[in-house]
Amino acid sequence: MTDTICAISTPPGIGGIAVARVSGPESIMITQSLWKGVDLSQVKSHTAHLGNILDCDGSVLDQALVTVFKAPNSFTGDNVVEISVHGSKYIQRQLINALISSGARLADPGEFTRRAFISGKLDLAQAEAVADMIASSSKAAHRIAINQMRGGFSKRLSSLREQLLELASLLELELDFSEEDVEFASRKKLLKIAIDVNTEVNRLLHSFKSGSAIKDGIPVAIVGETNAGKSSLLNTILGDDKAIVSDIHGTTRDIIEDTIEVGDYLFRFMDTAGLRDTTDKIESIGIDRAYSAISHARIVILVIDLTQPLNTQPLQYIHNNIESDDLTKLIIALNKSDLDGTVLTTNKIREALKDCKISSEVPILPISAKNGTGIDALLKELQKTVAANDETDNVMITNLRHCEALTKAADTSQRVISGLQDNLSGDLIAQDLRETIFHLGTITGNITSQDILTNIFSRFCIGK
Amino acid sequence: MTDTICAISTPPGIGGIAVARVSGPESIMITQSLWKGVDLSQVKSHTAHLGNILDCDGSVLDQALVTVFKAPNSFTGDNVVEISVHGSKYIQRQLINALISSGARLADPGEFTRRAFISGKLDLAQAEAVADMIASSSKAAHRIAINQMRGGFSKRLSSLREQLLELASLLELELDFSEEDVEFASRKKLLKIAIDVNTEVNRLLHSFKSGSAIKDGIPVAIVGETNAGKSSLLNTILGDDKAIVSDIHGTTRDIIEDTIEVGDYLFRFMDTAGLRDTTDKIESIGIDRAYSAISHARIVILVIDLTQPLNTQPLQYIHNNIESDDLTKLIIALNKSDLDGTVLTTNKIREALKDCKISSEVPILPISAKNGTGIDALLKELQKTVAANDETDNVMITNLRHCEALTKAADTSQRVISGLQDNLSGDLIAQDLRETIFHLGTITGNITSQDILTNIFSRFCIGK
Repeated sequence: MTDTICAISTPPGIGGIAVARVSGPESIMITQSLWKGVDLSQVKSHTAHLGNILDCDGSVLDQALVTVFKAPNSFTGDNVVEISVHGSKYIQRQLINALISSGARLADPGEFTRRAFISGKLDLAQAEAVADMIASSSKAAHRIAINQMRGGFSKRLSSLREQLLELASLLELELDFSEEDVEFASRKKLLKIAIDVNTEVNRLLHSFKSGSAIKDGIPVAIVGETNAGKSSLLNTILGDDKAIVSDIHGTTRDIIEDTIEVGDYLFRFMDTAGLRDTTDKIESIGIDRAYSAISHARIVILVIDLTQPLNTQPLQYIHNNIESDDLTKLIIALNKSDLDGTVLTTNKIREALKDCKISSEVPILPISAKNGTGIDALLKELQKTVAANDETDNVMITNLRHCEALTKAADTSQRVISGLQDNLSGDLIAQDLRETIFHLGTITGNITSQDILTNIFSRFCIGK
Repeated sequence: MTDTICAISTPPGIGGIAVARVSGPESIMITQSLWKGVDLSQVKSHTAHLGNILDCDGSVLDQALVTVFKAPNSFTGDNVVEISVHGSKYIQRQLINALISSGARLADPGEFTRRAFISGKLDLAQAEAVADMIASSSKAAHRIAINQMRGGFSKRLSSLREQLLELASLLELELDFSEEDVEFASRKKLLKIAIDVNTEVNRLLHSFKSGSAIKDGIPVAIVGETNAGKSSLLNTILGDDKAIVSDIHGTTRDIIEDTIEVGDYLFRFMDTAGLRDTTDKIESIGIDRAYSAISHARIVILVIDLTQPLNTQPLQYIHNNIESDDLTKLIIALNKSDLDGTVLTTNKIREALKDCKISSEVPILPISAKNGTGIDALLKELQKTVAANDETDNVMITNLRHCEALTKAADTSQRVISGLQDNLSGDLIAQDLRETIFHLGTITGNITSQDILTNIFSRFCIGK
């Protein structure tokens, strides 16, 4: 952390203003060398100054507003200068060129945040939340990320860590005095702590499926028989001709998907091949994929053609497959409500649901994918379904790295429990305990390596 | 100027940070209502503060850095708050929503700059330069815009205005004492002032052709006989398959153009139809357009096929048409230098030039559009040609509105001259004088209307 880095921190492109950040021991001196205005080395921290920024050749590049943040009270913990200029591409390019020729270096992606982590301004989970927050496009994804950035997840981890350290010290005592055959801590108490920790680790792990769905888009599978209007429904929802629609049975073979924000959530809609018996090889691969989409979806929209007799086979299949997973919900859309000669009614469907032993609470909505009737009600039902299971007020994990670390911690903490239950000796248990502490420590960065850091921060945008 | 406006001022999209600007009497109070941190109404001007920005529902939207600028020491002259948040689309959208629901209004395009103009922070020509500067992509265009923004053009206009006001007051004196038949100011002196003003107005007007070329791209016409390789040359320069290339004579009919930055300048290359006698109606329209392109170009590149006998007809035509305009320069590119069996040499061309009475200083460059040989030298020649006539250190005009106003001022000031020369009475001359002052005043906005302002500022981006 001996050099000074710089980058444009605002989005790429043309705008009213653009902001360059400079961080490092020389940041104020480097800016001063390109500056006509007050002496920046003499100004107070957190003050903004209007002046002129010079180009490499000494000509005035732009009027600029320069704000100085003195170490340690800055984002990175080092001296930071923010230079706000007019947002032309030329000025942005030249400003960075001028800073570099005055001794700064172009920052790597995420390097400002990495320096903030290294100087202890935030832990690793918080730093990762910064990138998640910048990428989040829905209210729910934003809520999870900002909770994590503000330390909600870190606090939970640090409380787990404290419990584990207490457990370790109690075990330590037991070891120290083992020859005297005195049991300082009751094993029952140790077991209770271990179970508490393991339960909480598993709860966090369990939140990953919901958390990552909220972050990447809640998967919604649109399924049904061929020609029921699944692709038309997808197109109507997306307002886009993404899927090819035709009257020919079996038009959709690949899974076509796209995300769209509805209310507070981002949904990932998947149009699937129509479910029917087929001898067409490619189509049957498509149908297999449709079944696989059902098992990965959080919501399944079964599209039924009102003008055709009811086939209960898909209903039965879906029911059997999502019944076991209480997170996946079924919604039935009765399509082609705009046509005359509908042969099905909501009541007939309810009866069929009863026969299949499907809960009478499954929402059944008449729609017309063709003219858009009932689509708003369908989207509201989607939101309602997700909102009813919304846990974003709780700490949720959304990051695969955290999921992996927690999986290991769940495993080792389970071994601690078994060890205590089987009355193993303290030093055997202590090993599993240390590993649990280690795995949790990798999440917040108490324990880390350069490789992990490089991997994490390379996913950031430049200037952050 | 009684309400408070807000907008995202950084480029649209996702980035490390985004900045919202709030300007108006309530800007500090509105921000304070969404703020958890120090009391913003108590802080000093030009200070930055870290805290939390709240969403409409009172939840924390983001950590934010808020900088307060108190009237009149701000960009707009009113109280201004800059809110720097993480650059996610969601946060940017919600921040603006929250500001609006707290009483701010979304700013119109250019409204911050418009307010700066109204409060006298900059004149109209300077305000227009802000938009030009944001749009400028080359060093030369930027140099003109920043000179104008820093007041170079305005100073020149205000000096003209002072001269005209002096002329007016001298004429006034003459009128007041006309019955006494005393000539206070010698008409000779008045004439000198009028001629000085008219000369300067014409000089500025004259700079428009160069100025707008630098701003929008210096027009370069690529001309020559059919199949000389004009389209190949354009494609090689642009690094792109923009023009259709074939061995069939007369492939290019429309004028194909694109801009590219070379060194300090933006060039607008125009590929034209091959010059030849043709009976094809559409082709002959294309050839007419090629001749028209020559007359609008600043630089004409005549492409000659080294493997064909020299046809001096295009050479003669170009020479006759650009000779009159000393701004337009000719460069000759001898193409297909990669092929064997070239029948032309540079010396032969020089002789032909001599015969056509074309200056011996016309650069002649062997190139191969096909394999790229000589293209760098050609581009350097283009830069050299423009740099030799670069007047960007002088005040140049680039704006059509200014050009129109100066055209009118040139006309009325010429009438002042004629009036003085013809010894017309002072009150007749005074009318033309007032009109001249009026037209120059519309440029800097001493005289303006709401319509003109709306027209000017609607071209800005939002947030500026």
